[in-house]
Amino acid sequence: MTPLADPITSPGAYTGPATLAGIETPAPVVDLGRLAANLDRTAAYAASHGIALRPHVKTHKSPLIAREQLRRGAAGLTCATVREVEVMSAVTDDVLFAYPPIGGPRLHRLLSAPPPVRLTVSLDSEAAIDALADAAAAAGRSVRVYVEADVGMHRVGVTSAEHAVSLARRVAGRRELEYAGLAFYAGHIRVPPAKQDERLAQLNQALGTIVDALTAAGLKPPAVSGGSTPTLWRTHELPAVTEIRPGTYVYNDRMTADLGACTLDQCALTVLATVVSTSVPDQAVVDAGTKALGRDPLDDASHAGFGAVADHPDVVVSRMSEEHGILDLRGTSWRPETGDLVRIIPNHVCVVVHLNDVVYGVRGERVEMSWPVAARGRV
Amino acid sequence: MTPLADPITSPGAYTGPATLAGIETPAPVVDLGRLAANLDRTAAYAASHGIALRPHVKTHKSPLIAREQLRRGAAGLTCATVREVEVMSAVTDDVLFAYPPIGGPRLHRLLSAPPPVRLTVSLDSEAAIDALADAAAAAGRSVRVYVEADVGMHRVGVTSAEHAVSLARRVAGRRELEYAGLAFYAGHIRVPPAKQDERLAQLNQALGTIVDALTAAGLKPPAVSGGSTPTLWRTHELPAVTEIRPGTYVYNDRMTADLGACTLDQCALTVLATVVSTSVPDQAVVDAGTKALGRDPLDDASHAGFGAVADHPDVVVSRMSEEHGILDLRGTSWRPETGDLVRIIPNHVCVVVHLNDVVYGVRGERVEMSWPVAARGRV
Repeated sequence: MTPLADPITSPGAYTGPATLAGIETPAPVVDLGRLAANLDRTAAYAASHGIALRPHVKTHKSPLIAREQLRRGAAGLTCATVREVEVMSAVTDDVLFAYPPIGGPRLHRLLSAPPPVRLTVSLDSEAAIDALADAAAAAGRSVRVYVEADVGMHRVGVTSAEHAVSLARRVAGRRELEYAGLAFYAGHIRVPPAKQDERLAQLNQALGTIVDALTAAGLKPPAVSGGSTPTLWRTHELPAVTEIRPGTYVYNDRMTADLGACTLDQCALTVLATVVSTSVPDQAVVDAGTKALGRDPLDDASHAGFGAVADHPDVVVSRMSEEHGILDLRGTSWRPETGDLVRIIPNHVCVVVHLNDVVYGVRGERVEMSWPVAARGRV
Repeated sequence: MTPLADPITSPGAYTGPATLAGIETPAPVVDLGRLAANLDRTAAYAASHGIALRPHVKTHKSPLIAREQLRRGAAGLTCATVREVEVMSAVTDDVLFAYPPIGGPRLHRLLSAPPPVRLTVSLDSEAAIDALADAAAAAGRSVRVYVEADVGMHRVGVTSAEHAVSLARRVAGRRELEYAGLAFYAGHIRVPPAKQDERLAQLNQALGTIVDALTAAGLKPPAVSGGSTPTLWRTHELPAVTEIRPGTYVYNDRMTADLGACTLDQCALTVLATVVSTSVPDQAVVDAGTKALGRDPLDDASHAGFGAVADHPDVVVSRMSEEHGILDLRGTSWRPETGDLVRIIPNHVCVVVHLNDVVYGVRGERVEMSWPVAARGRV
């Protein structure tokens, strides 16, 4: 295992609570051993299959974690906000802005990223190409472009191979832009493993059609960038793909486990919470509500709650208010007491991190460090 | 109308974007006229019925807005986190901590609030009373206590009048504590107006039983504190209630309108967003997703989306990713273009504010000021 580097493992500089009991709850705590193992596992997978790993920083929003990813061979980083680009430019000079570069303030700020940063932007419209090219010209820099295709999720991306070719040609025709490849996000194959086979086959077909059309037009994509954590381990079954952008894998979460892409034991981040009331029978109330856990449901399982107790994964957060989470105890003999600490595995870890300013790094009960969620927020 | 005071209306000190077009999206923008009207309306209602108004700051987390509430006669403020207590102690010396005071770090920090602040705490257990009394003794200060009762929501609160009496007696027996009354939160009457009548009658009965039991035991509650925005305007139908703690009313939101406690025209806060993609037919993608809007559903209406376009309230955010919101355009002839700005009325404004560091104050297209969400976060 690659050990975590300083300063993420420099407990000498940490002056906060020494044990979990000293942390004011609710608070996100990361098992440092699991984090390192998650980082290693994904880096090894990508390396063994010759796929470039360009992790999405949206999950951790921390340059310290990003540096750990880069140390393990990541080809660069992926960002969704300009705040993320700004913060990550301290640790990398290769950033993919995987978000439509639309809106004057966003575009201006994006092009103001420190010049050593090689910027790549994914986009899906003529308007985006023209605005980006004009902004690049004004900033006196060159920007690489991935043409984004919709391969079935129906979120962003061109919906035909013809449109992809036409955008790629338009990009190639602008002096300030460099046509760098094809991007896609197959969020619709976030389904349980049994259903993935058919969708992966459809995805291969969709990608093949677009790549063939681009190649026939003399615009063979130098890179084909896709992938996310839920289908991470099946990327080698998509021969067109040269680069993946998973984010969640650093921490993992209940949704990822539900989709078969990790086990609950590989979930590195839990929300430390305190039982604050047990006065209503058959439930315990913890201080982690929507403002600590978010409210993402498990796919296809609205009855499955908004998080599960790490040591009692059958006990879920069945209801929430902003600062209250209700643990449903009807199916268990476990009865926590007021004041007890519990650790909750969140459904979707990315929104949990976004709700916090600080994350604690722990081994067992011992708190070794904390780090800021430096790229949280927008201004 | 009471005009908003400096510095919330000191545009001279504001140096940010002058118009909506200059704001980087997504961002929360507040219509200052609607804000002032919402503040006035609620203050007038409370005053006309002789009910103490102790607004919950969880919605705005801003001492500037809190000061506007206090200028209009609020009796003090209500907080749910110690961060809120700390920040609000700059503008008030009367704070209700409406949250179980459980957990050493929380309790220690709470009792460290500046001494001029008169602290009241609501609680529902013997453990909470004993811990609070010990912490108050150690801090050399006195704390007022509301005994919290469950009146049907089944979140926190004692579930019998006997337990309420026993806790009130225990509080009265601790030298460091002052028995100050009864608290409740009737979140279960957040139902459409047609269903409220029956639940209000049940609530009156439940409150009567507890107040009678306390009175018979020589522990008549000096205050009975309840109320929230959804049933705000019916508080006078609850004769036992002496104090209300609404939060949402300053901004209002789609859920409040859905429950009949405001109109959509009284929603002061919208999320300014940019259309970033229209490449998939019959939809437009905006840059406000779960990390900007939260994911609270409308009660009883999971098909109703996660927010509505202010100028086209039939158009809802039907799906979201972290940084993408999908506007479903199938039911409208309106077709926004890439780059257009839209304003989205969120389902639940409290979680939106919690997701942001800065709020902009606007009149029409003109941005007059911004203010920090000073009590956001926990550390």
